[in-house]
Amino acid sequence: MKISTLSIGDELICGQVIDTNAGTVASLLLAEGLRIQRHLTVGDNEQDIIGALNDLGRVSEVIIVTGGLGPTADDLTSRAAARATGRRLVVHEEARAHVRQMSGRLNNLIVCPLNDKQAMIPSKSVLIPNPNGTACGFHLMHNGSFMFFMPGVPAEMTVMLRDTVIPYILERAPRKRIIRAASLNLFGPCEAEVDELLQGIARPEQGLTLGICVAFPWMKVTLRAEAERESAVEALLASALQTARNRLLEYCFSSGDTGMDDAVAELLRNSGLTLSLAESCSGGLIAKRITDIPGSSGYFSEGVVTYSNEAKKRLLGVSAELLDNFGAVSAECAAALAGGVRLASGSDLGLAVTGIAGPDGGSGEKPVGTVFISLAAPDGCWTERFQFSGSRADVRTLTAWTALDRLRRYLLKR
Amino acid sequence: MKISTLSIGDELICGQVIDTNAGTVASLLLAEGLRIQRHLTVGDNEQDIIGALNDLGRVSEVIIVTGGLGPTADDLTSRAAARATGRRLVVHEEARAHVRQMSGRLNNLIVCPLNDKQAMIPSKSVLIPNPNGTACGFHLMHNGSFMFFMPGVPAEMTVMLRDTVIPYILERAPRKRIIRAASLNLFGPCEAEVDELLQGIARPEQGLTLGICVAFPWMKVTLRAEAERESAVEALLASALQTARNRLLEYCFSSGDTGMDDAVAELLRNSGLTLSLAESCSGGLIAKRITDIPGSSGYFSEGVVTYSNEAKKRLLGVSAELLDNFGAVSAECAAALAGGVRLASGSDLGLAVTGIAGPDGGSGEKPVGTVFISLAAPDGCWTERFQFSGSRADVRTLTAWTALDRLRRYLLKR
Repeated sequence: MKISTLSIGDELICGQVIDTNAGTVASLLLAEGLRIQRHLTVGDNEQDIIGALNDLGRVSEVIIVTGGLGPTADDLTSRAAARATGRRLVVHEEARAHVRQMSGRLNNLIVCPLNDKQAMIPSKSVLIPNPNGTACGFHLMHNGSFMFFMPGVPAEMTVMLRDTVIPYILERAPRKRIIRAASLNLFGPCEAEVDELLQGIARPEQGLTLGICVAFPWMKVTLRAEAERESAVEALLASALQTARNRLLEYCFSSGDTGMDDAVAELLRNSGLTLSLAESCSGGLIAKRITDIPGSSGYFSEGVVTYSNEAKKRLLGVSAELLDNFGAVSAECAAALAGGVRLASGSDLGLAVTGIAGPDGGSGEKPVGTVFISLAAPDGCWTERFQFSGSRADVRTLTAWTALDRLRRYLLKR
Repeated sequence: MKISTLSIGDELICGQVIDTNAGTVASLLLAEGLRIQRHLTVGDNEQDIIGALNDLGRVSEVIIVTGGLGPTADDLTSRAAARATGRRLVVHEEARAHVRQMSGRLNNLIVCPLNDKQAMIPSKSVLIPNPNGTACGFHLMHNGSFMFFMPGVPAEMTVMLRDTVIPYILERAPRKRIIRAASLNLFGPCEAEVDELLQGIARPEQGLTLGICVAFPWMKVTLRAEAERESAVEALLASALQTARNRLLEYCFSSGDTGMDDAVAELLRNSGLTLSLAESCSGGLIAKRITDIPGSSGYFSEGVVTYSNEAKKRLLGVSAELLDNFGAVSAECAAALAGGVRLASGSDLGLAVTGIAGPDGGSGEKPVGTVFISLAAPDGCWTERFQFSGSRADVRTLTAWTALDRLRRYLLKR
């Protein structure tokens, strides 16, 4: 089944906003064994939308369109869809009732004015219910292609796709071959090293392919198996996955959609240990990532962002002498921060980072990107120096990732 | 000039990685008055890449391609480009020297093995230098279209685009009409309210268009002016921008690429005041955003993430009695945290948040999404209750945005 997606929006084609919908649609379809072949983006321009629908119509049995169904004048998708398929634009009574009902319910701070524009869709279309917003979606059949139209708001689109569009496609899709994918997430090695480690695992002639995707600062290795029977696909995938795991060892921090933060959270939860943080150059980024995870209050007691030397002394008992002798960016200071926060908070583990994120503040001996990471635990304290490169944001990102990875490796070994 | 972009990668078409390159290319071209008409994405499949190049070739004078030039076996762009344009794939000596030279220099932790594959490009192509990575880009002319090929790594691609591709296009572009865009960034109102406020500003017949783009939890209003003379474009845009500003007032926190964090940072810098933070439900997210900005150590002294009641008492002197009587999620506690961190750190301003991010922990009286934000300043202390909706991540995002917006409004009024 040939499936294409089309994202519509001036903000997308002009690069002001990154299109996340195309990725969401692709992931959810892939989970059902359906692959997208083409993804196209055009602006809020009627001729461009009509051209895109016509072109995709020639090569696709299914076209999934997002965006341009809003209440404002620059939202042109319904009108373009009507023109492209030779239909009239009509007020859909059910859609109108929906728009009126939702307008009152949303935005607990501000109630938006009503707008019947969102109730106008091409004639002989079927509504796609939108439980989370005013814009109705719709679908229609034109020249042998199913066309689905949904609003661009990600939270609304995702529910409509999952509840209506995908079930509709699956009912009509001839599922001859079964595709399953599995992925491993890595931190540490470079792309060529991973390629070397995974030599020979991909066997395209047997339906097993492998992709490596660099997503700074981590990497995803995806294995895809394709066969006619479910059992064959599962066996193919399981064996390749095991081989890959055996070769990648500690580089692999999780599989599938589990991120580094979730992986660390699970290890912490299972360990029964509590954690506190002292952050200097990462400025709260590690605390943010730890507390992103629901239930983190079970193991995370407190974090301090000690940007000033004064705060390092008062909050964590780092001595003035140590700061004078070694400086705030030093292995000694990192260890004192980790030990200090562990002691002050009474938690089992103290994780601390101090470094120079840049763009200024570097020296010959300690250039921008110099970072010390220290972990204080009941059985020891480990402090290590790193030299990261890149922008201020890169250095902070690498600092947080590396600190979380050290914590992960400690918890794994326990 | 008709310009299209093409992103290549299984990770993109399968939705594992969000494509940011298309947006970067579009933004940088738009800054030069060049508009992208179509953006297409396909996977690492030779036939799909060839099909995409052929189809885009029919409607585009310029095609900018990113991705698929890496060292691994799944990178197929060079070969597909050669097939699509009827050329041979040859080892380019200059490219080979570059690959060898860069391989040694990159990855200060791990040196990657050499790989000549990256030096193979279609015959009669011109190299695009890549100062930041091993993969060389190249460009060629085929059937009246200029085709530019660059690696997908954003940092590498951006430099190649800016230094080589854009100058090359500009030299050949017939610049008949001048396009200038300007944007205002808003926090607070809903889309329909903004549409209402901006009624009548767009005058497409005079070359002035307006777009509203919702980028949770903020919004971007973009004004685009198009005319034949530079002075006419500037005048059209300046007048529309002034009208929009006058109507949007305090909703507008910045213009152009300046984010909320930059806007707050600038106000703080100019105020000469220092800031400290006490975060509960936002768990370091506000500190992270404050310290994202270079130079933040000039006004930010410290932040504490007081997840446990114990930490609230010990670090910020919140009394046990207050916590017993009102609870940790209360206006009283928020005010005590803001005042406490201001006092303990000796900074001018103390900003504190406490709330229930969810998914658990809500009650009838204080459901998930209940958040108290407090700002303690030399001239008073303001505490406000908010009811946010959405996921844990949404509530945390809204909490940080609203807290920063309160701080911004305070600094503006001073």
